[in-house]
Amino acid sequence: MSDTDTLTVLHRLSDLLKQRRTADPEKSYVARLYSRGTAKIAQKVGEEAVELAIAAVQGDRDDIRGEAADLLFHLMVLLEDADLGLDDVAAELAARENLSGLEEKRRRTP
Amino acid sequence: MSDTDTLTVLHRLSDLLKQRRTADPEKSYVARLYSRGTAKIAQKVGEEAVELAIAAVQGDRDDIRGEAADLLFHLMVLLEDADLGLDDVAAELAARENLSGLEEKRRRTP
Amino acid sequence: MSDTDTLTVLHRLSDLLKQRRTADPEKSYVARLYSRGTAKIAQKVGEEAVELAIAAVQGDRDDIRGEAADLLFHLMVLLEDADLGLDDVAAELAARENLSGLEEKRRRTP
Amino acid sequence: MSDTDTLTVLHRLSDLLKQRRTADPEKSYVARLYSRGTAKIAQKVGEEAVELAIAAVQGDRDDIRGEAADLLFHLMVLLEDADLGLDDVAAELAARENLSGLEEKRRRTP
Repeated sequence: MSDTDTLTVLHRLSDLLKQRRTADPEKSYVARLYSRGTAKIAQKVGEEAVELAIAAVQGDRDDIRGEAADLLFHLMVLLEDADLGLDDVAAELAARENLSGLEEKRRRTP
Repeated sequence: MSDTDTLTVLHRLSDLLKQRRTADPEKSYVARLYSRGTAKIAQKVGEEAVELAIAAVQGDRDDIRGEAADLLFHLMVLLEDADLGLDDVAAELAARENLSGLEEKRRRTP
Repeated sequence: MSDTDTLTVLHRLSDLLKQRRTADPEKSYVARLYSRGTAKIAQKVGEEAVELAIAAVQGDRDDIRGEAADLLFHLMVLLEDADLGLDDVAAELAARENLSGLEEKRRRTP
Repeated sequence: MSDTDTLTVLHRLSDLLKQRRTADPEKSYVARLYSRGTAKIAQKVGEEAVELAIAAVQGDRDDIRGEAADLLFHLMVLLEDADLGLDDVAAELAARENLSGLEEKRRRTP
């Protein structure tokens, strides 16, 4: 998958998650998630991370990819719910850079 | 932050995480993480997700952005450890689309 | 609730969880959990802990008690699945004592 | 380990966790945890559950016992922080019984 495609997919997903904020909870999984509130969305992120952690230890790459997709999906829902987006997270990661700077910070707090 | 910048940041981070696989664990947080093994990396992903979930419930957007960056960072480490990348995850998300298809799948498994 | 009652409840639960290992997965939630395997049980423990963490931050004591019960319940299922019990865990906690010893250990690994 | 011993250990631990609420955070791991607040304690419970989940999947019984002890320990800290105790959790589990009643409830919410 080319970089352009990756960005396109993440963009389309981001747009979809934004649109779903006004969708009918009866008809959309994401709209239902928003309607259940932030704590429920936060819970889903935690759950998907646990599933990914277990998949990683078990070592099946198809499972890892699938669970990572679930986690990234719900991470983006959580961000949208907080009026944030992947762009803000990328900016945060950039702010910790030059990336050696990020390394530096991490080395101090293992 | 422009889309190009976002993709650039994620790319630079991805490249860095790849390079760190052969770096000195004494000098790099990420190299040390790889050297401690998959279970330790999986554990970090789970921990960062718990921190993000708590930050989301507490509602401080700066905290949410910071914790989301920590989670995305460690998610990318986990993917690299499994010889996968964000591109694979984006492809997985695309495969679940058209995005209405993704919605469809989710609606069946609430 | 008296101490005797607490121990009685934990014992009855422990016995029940043992019996359910040979029960019909169609008729028992716990039997179904065992039949789905260790990874599924581990996942449930992680999920219940995330729910408890969120409830703790939200501060509703009824919710905290309910989620703590869910977590303890699934922790005991996980232990039974590994042929362990609360007694083994209590023995482990005792082995870390005198309790000042436990404190000592913890102080070194914050 | 006899039942009496198990109860004794859990009691001693419960008493210790209560005493530590007024202890010096410089000298006690638990006192320091209380002083860092509920969110930090909640985070620890989530983290220990992730570690236990990973240990369960890896299947080393010594690790499982150790991680289960860590989780139970921090669960009791969280309860004490909310002015609750294992007795309250046992009462909650009993309220869901007779245990077939608990099974009943679970069967409806898989």
